[in-house]
Amino acid sequence: MLDVIAFDGDDTLWHSESFFEVTQQRFAELLAAHVEADALSELLLETERGNLAVFGYGVKGFTLSMIETAVEVVGDAITAEVIETIIGWGKEMLHHPVELLDGVEETLRVLGRDHRLALVTKGDLFHQESKIAQSGLGDLFDHVAVVAEKDEACYRRVTAQLGVPPEGLLMVGNSLRSDVLPVVAIGAKAVHVPYHITWELEVPDEEAIAAHDHWRIDDIRDLPRIVDEITGTGGDPRGATA
Amino acid sequence: MLDVIAFDGDDTLWHSESFFEVTQQRFAELLAAHVEADALSELLLETERGNLAVFGYGVKGFTLSMIETAVEVVGDAITAEVIETIIGWGKEMLHHPVELLDGVEETLRVLGRDHRLALVTKGDLFHQESKIAQSGLGDLFDHVAVVAEKDEACYRRVTAQLGVPPEGLLMVGNSLRSDVLPVVAIGAKAVHVPYHITWELEVPDEEAIAAHDHWRIDDIRDLPRIVDEITGTGGDPRGATA
Repeated sequence: MLDVIAFDGDDTLWHSESFFEVTQQRFAELLAAHVEADALSELLLETERGNLAVFGYGVKGFTLSMIETAVEVVGDAITAEVIETIIGWGKEMLHHPVELLDGVEETLRVLGRDHRLALVTKGDLFHQESKIAQSGLGDLFDHVAVVAEKDEACYRRVTAQLGVPPEGLLMVGNSLRSDVLPVVAIGAKAVHVPYHITWELEVPDEEAIAAHDHWRIDDIRDLPRIVDEITGTGGDPRGATA
Repeated sequence: MLDVIAFDGDDTLWHSESFFEVTQQRFAELLAAHVEADALSELLLETERGNLAVFGYGVKGFTLSMIETAVEVVGDAITAEVIETIIGWGKEMLHHPVELLDGVEETLRVLGRDHRLALVTKGDLFHQESKIAQSGLGDLFDHVAVVAEKDEACYRRVTAQLGVPPEGLLMVGNSLRSDVLPVVAIGAKAVHVPYHITWELEVPDEEAIAAHDHWRIDDIRDLPRIVDEITGTGGDPRGATA
């Protein structure tokens, strides 16, 4: 049984984490006279972790966390140029053209012929809506939800809005923590399509992963095969994950 | 005919602009040695206007705009303390307890007995959701929409999601630009409840206002009277506005 196939946005349909990584490398170069790259990376992650509950996800919070970290590291030697440079990177990230991952558009068009599609994406509402519009994929989705956090309550809300039971939802995404674990926990199905980098704060613990059956593919172009399996045979995740 | 009564959040149900104003006063004091309060206020507004299309609405964008303005004004005399202070204000605003406006809760409870209620609020998703949760009003709403921009397309989407025709929607809010003009433009009804301060970038031009029939009340506790008028007599805005 499969009523709706839902997709994550960042790092599932379009590149995102790679832009954060590039910015962090530039951040390390900018402050190279003051701190080692690894130590800066640790400090920034600590700041981000501390700010997550107040800023939420997204580029604006990341930019504020970079500024906070820079000030902490450099102290009163901080210059207008350093701050201006960091704010400039934030704007650049927000302005960056959307780059779809390989195979995304064709796969969505194929699946959209026989299935209702949805987008469930996390982060900054304004930026996500601008990315959806730019992606050219908006019309393929019956339902778009930009959410503040992807937890079980979020997915229960999404299935209610779609008017489908949890077992009728298949979620596809790159984050085990956000796109797989809470989905499987409410009785829905999940396909993990890893991105080549994962933000540290999105890494779940191994035990949690082992306890949650799901499919894993390395290329979104393999998704129609999984969908055929589910609709054709009832789909046994344990068999398919191997 | 009246199917759903929808409310704006910030400055309609709970205080918001007053916290921005207090922060701007503190910002003027912080930079008093470098710039006159009025000139700073102009500069900040210019920065916010320039950043709106990339940051959208909300406290994080406002905080980044304050930092950008401070750096512009102070130049290399900028100190770690100034930046830390501004980031601290941003966090304080995001953490600030929700303060409902007078009469809001009782009015919503009265109207909720006979009508479907909705919340249509603009700004930072994470912050808005936290305010909705804190407000204790969440359960009163059949539908909650946090949107990036309140334009005609937004209100068309909301009525579609609610499954009501435009003329079945009554929108209640403090911003003529966001809660009244686009609502009336799609054929829905609107009640303007002014807040004692309006952010400069929310002020519409006089001509646009004159061309859009709507009700205006000074206290949300007068709303049930307007609703009675609409449901009882068909409600003629022109008569009631006077």
